[in-house]
Amino acid sequence: MRIALDGMGGDNAPVSNVKGAVDAINEYKNVELIVTGDKEILEKEFAKYEFDKNRLEIIHTTEVVENEDKPVKAIRSKKDSSMVVALRMVKEGKAEAVVSAGNTGALLAGGLFVVGRIKGIDRPCLCPAIPNVKKGMTIIADGGANADCKPRNLVEFAAMSDIYSKKVLGIEKPRVAVANVGAEEGKGNDLVKKAYEELKGLDLNFIGNVEARDVINDKTDIIVCDGFTGNILLKSAEGIALSLMGLIKETLMSSTKGKLGALLIKDDLRKLKAYMDYSEYGGAPLLGVKGGVIKAHGSSDAKAIKNAVRQAIKFAEGNVVEDIKEFINEYSKKEEEASGDEE
Amino acid sequence: MRIALDGMGGDNAPVSNVKGAVDAINEYKNVELIVTGDKEILEKEFAKYEFDKNRLEIIHTTEVVENEDKPVKAIRSKKDSSMVVALRMVKEGKAEAVVSAGNTGALLAGGLFVVGRIKGIDRPCLCPAIPNVKKGMTIIADGGANADCKPRNLVEFAAMSDIYSKKVLGIEKPRVAVANVGAEEGKGNDLVKKAYEELKGLDLNFIGNVEARDVINDKTDIIVCDGFTGNILLKSAEGIALSLMGLIKETLMSSTKGKLGALLIKDDLRKLKAYMDYSEYGGAPLLGVKGGVIKAHGSSDAKAIKNAVRQAIKFAEGNVVEDIKEFINEYSKKEEEASGDEE
Repeated sequence: MRIALDGMGGDNAPVSNVKGAVDAINEYKNVELIVTGDKEILEKEFAKYEFDKNRLEIIHTTEVVENEDKPVKAIRSKKDSSMVVALRMVKEGKAEAVVSAGNTGALLAGGLFVVGRIKGIDRPCLCPAIPNVKKGMTIIADGGANADCKPRNLVEFAAMSDIYSKKVLGIEKPRVAVANVGAEEGKGNDLVKKAYEELKGLDLNFIGNVEARDVINDKTDIIVCDGFTGNILLKSAEGIALSLMGLIKETLMSSTKGKLGALLIKDDLRKLKAYMDYSEYGGAPLLGVKGGVIKAHGSSDAKAIKNAVRQAIKFAEGNVVEDIKEFINEYSKKEEEASGDEE
Repeated sequence: MRIALDGMGGDNAPVSNVKGAVDAINEYKNVELIVTGDKEILEKEFAKYEFDKNRLEIIHTTEVVENEDKPVKAIRSKKDSSMVVALRMVKEGKAEAVVSAGNTGALLAGGLFVVGRIKGIDRPCLCPAIPNVKKGMTIIADGGANADCKPRNLVEFAAMSDIYSKKVLGIEKPRVAVANVGAEEGKGNDLVKKAYEELKGLDLNFIGNVEARDVINDKTDIIVCDGFTGNILLKSAEGIALSLMGLIKETLMSSTKGKLGALLIKDDLRKLKAYMDYSEYGGAPLLGVKGGVIKAHGSSDAKAIKNAVRQAIKFAEGNVVEDIKEFINEYSKKEEEASGDEE
């Protein structure tokens, strides 16, 4: 099992990336890592740790995709960047999946242009997970790759994230729901109304609509939506949780009793904060491209990188790409038959 | 100043509606209330309180729009419902504004069909407010009336909620922002990209995009978006706040130290809960119709009803409808001129 890791992508690169790589090599005995980046810098970092050096290959690259770079332009012009070279490993069959904590937009563009779309898939989607209050996670599909979507895209998102949830997250019958303004059928904008109709006919555990108020209440395993809505859902959850924690702290600090209470509950609040910490939950897969592409959080520490590598391993072991190909082949066939019937 | 109140709408009707009406009459000396509903029931409720009976008129109605009713059908078929008759008071000039805590969809439909759109306004919008962490409020325009929108609609929402914020909320130069997936110009779906361009040209304190993570951080006074997105924003904020409070409670109750701490901070948490309680923040105006239509929260207590009546008074006093007419006349004129120039 060979996994490529963008050694220079992310806020804490290459330090956390190298430490994460070492931890992954030590923990997952079947993995070989290909790490891209400035060889001299990487070798110096790796020299700090004990691990099986036979399972590491460093590929020297001279460029880095920065967070400020325009995604498509960066992928096209920075051919020798750690991100593009890592993506190329997957393209060329030298690695089965790639992990990067770098520029999200660039990784999405690279997934499309370097790794390439699976035939039949119109729009690959990014599928981040948010923690829910039952200590599980909920997948958002799409979480921000496609701002404008057609109903067909939502069908693809649903099917692909269903496969991912089964194969990588180990959920037997993932519940799939559409993000909507009401729970009843017939609610919402044109997009979700049409997608709802399509999803009813799919071989999925489709449970209907879920309202935004229930996104973190474990009512569903997968939330299907366009990428604009997905981003709104994700960032609301993240932002509101953080803002509320701040407000609670402020409220407690404004009274003596509150301060005393805060001292007593400090550890509990810290647990809660860790639980709401998105970096604990690994990376977000880009589904619908011809290989595993895992986007780790930009602020990934070594643990988050290691978790993302584990995700990449499971992704490759689970044959997610093959299953998606199979789904879209059958779906396209049925569509053709249906349109043939109509003629 | 005459305000109509749907006496039978809302989860706590007519008890809270009557108590709220009495409190409004006692507190706002310039108001006369027209309350619609079952006369016998209402009179019995009103008989419990002391107030200036000369400033109350009860209009007997025989029907009630229920929460389960289909909005448009309810407005069309229940002509003698407390909601429709209250709306008709505005239509006929017998009241300057109407307050209802009943079926939201029906009130929106009634606003359009009974009160009527302002000429030139394509889509009226519902503008609820959510509390932000600086103890102010942020207006969502549209908060759910229009699931599918064109850029022009977002321009109307921005202009109308700007007028409302100035005249009713007393904000001198309301900050207006577009809900988006990133702060930079050029982000988002087709709708918001085009709306952004339009909004730059308007006489508004337009501050650009705001991300969902900042919705409750007081970065803006008004958030402009389509009604689908608005509903997602609102329900995320509401749902996540409630879920987190539940999680905090659960976390604290799981340890002895936590339980002790919880005892000490009980009052602070209650304050926080009250602060996050949406019913404290009055109702949501329907902007773009020929009169004041205020939707009070379905679970309104007497205080929420009284606050909504105060909002209706300010709405009428502020000449919001006239200002919106003036805006749309000028905007339409400019549009015509611009299209004339192009020819």
